[in-house]
Amino acid sequence: MNKTTLLHEGKAKKVFLTDNSDLVIQEFKDDATAFNNKKKGSIGNKGVMNNAISCKLFTYLEENGISTHFVEKLSDRDMLCRFLEIIMVEVVVRNVAAGSLVRRYGFKEGTVLDEPIIELYLKDDDLDDPLMNESHAVALGLASLEELDQLKEQAAKINTLLRAFFAERQLNLVDFKLEFGRHKGAVLLGDEISPDTCRFWDLETGEKMDKDRFRFDMGGVEDAYTEVERRVLQD
Amino acid sequence: MNKTTLLHEGKAKKVFLTDNSDLVIQEFKDDATAFNNKKKGSIGNKGVMNNAISCKLFTYLEENGISTHFVEKLSDRDMLCRFLEIIMVEVVVRNVAAGSLVRRYGFKEGTVLDEPIIELYLKDDDLDDPLMNESHAVALGLASLEELDQLKEQAAKINTLLRAFFAERQLNLVDFKLEFGRHKGAVLLGDEISPDTCRFWDLETGEKMDKDRFRFDMGGVEDAYTEVERRVLQD
Repeated sequence: MNKTTLLHEGKAKKVFLTDNSDLVIQEFKDDATAFNNKKKGSIGNKGVMNNAISCKLFTYLEENGISTHFVEKLSDRDMLCRFLEIIMVEVVVRNVAAGSLVRRYGFKEGTVLDEPIIELYLKDDDLDDPLMNESHAVALGLASLEELDQLKEQAAKINTLLRAFFAERQLNLVDFKLEFGRHKGAVLLGDEISPDTCRFWDLETGEKMDKDRFRFDMGGVEDAYTEVERRVLQD
Repeated sequence: MNKTTLLHEGKAKKVFLTDNSDLVIQEFKDDATAFNNKKKGSIGNKGVMNNAISCKLFTYLEENGISTHFVEKLSDRDMLCRFLEIIMVEVVVRNVAAGSLVRRYGFKEGTVLDEPIIELYLKDDDLDDPLMNESHAVALGLASLEELDQLKEQAAKINTLLRAFFAERQLNLVDFKLEFGRHKGAVLLGDEISPDTCRFWDLETGEKMDKDRFRFDMGGVEDAYTEVERRVLQD
């Protein structure tokens, strides 16, 4: 399978068309951004690590009944995927209070939530990805109520699966962001699952092992990603 | 019925306890604030007008099957109400794009929505009343999912009733904010319904006839409130 046209270049990945109109190739970059592009940098080998982590996680989710865009790992940085018509809604699932939950609502960081909080954000950099609810998404023509229900239901299932997966690897899945898209009438999980899109805290020490280390100049960014990769790839 | 202790002084009203522990008196002030208290002022006779408008609207809603805290109009500025345990959730209903819908999501002002947008906000001045969804409200311990469903259902019914009421009076009900509270096991509509809490545009000219005139120094604030009062009170 060969890359033909560059379809889209995002902050962390390029997406290429292929000879097969149903398939695209995601190429993972080392570029790192935060605060909606206000902070830019690079994390050594991040693309290779996030591709490996995402491939493993998509495989695990597929084995457990979740439909994703993942087809196969082509190389260090390339993932073969089903072509998605992206739904411009970011779905965030939270198990523990951190980030905007602390800033916006005054939760104490680290508060364990009795039930996961599921949030919808409008995927629009120019508008700073604002929080929204189902009625906004429908009014904006992004998805139907039925699709949004499906997204939230899938997100909840994925959360249950991922929490168990990471707990076995001594990682606390604090929160994470998912993106979905339409493919031949079905809604599939897309994008990536990695320390760029999740918050992971070491289960024992509470140490942050994700992009927060980059966001807040905490140092040890590559080491954290490397350690997450090591734990994810272990059997 | 006499006021005893001042229970609470808000931005636009004082609430007093009475000799009857089930009842309170809301006293409407002329004070006007906007942008979460960053702008302060006063609108001549506003308290008298908003009390009259709210009493008429609560009566109309009660006649149409909505349970509210309204008991009776006691005087120009005083409304007798059932005592509520306030639910710290503000429910906003939108029929036409204006205000934060324009700023936050890029809707063009004046866009008529196919379906009303219903929003939940955390009632917390220190946090600037952030938008939230049901899972935030539950995690914050503000209300149960069942209560939130009830709030949204009531808000939708109230919207249908108020739109019809205002359309007959040549006013376009653009959006409005509601507050609810618990009273003897029931959830009742509380607070007020007035040009402080609604956006009204003249149906014919589109002229703004609400607190936006104060917010944005458009002039003619008292005249707008007076005209809304005249139209609301007409039979």
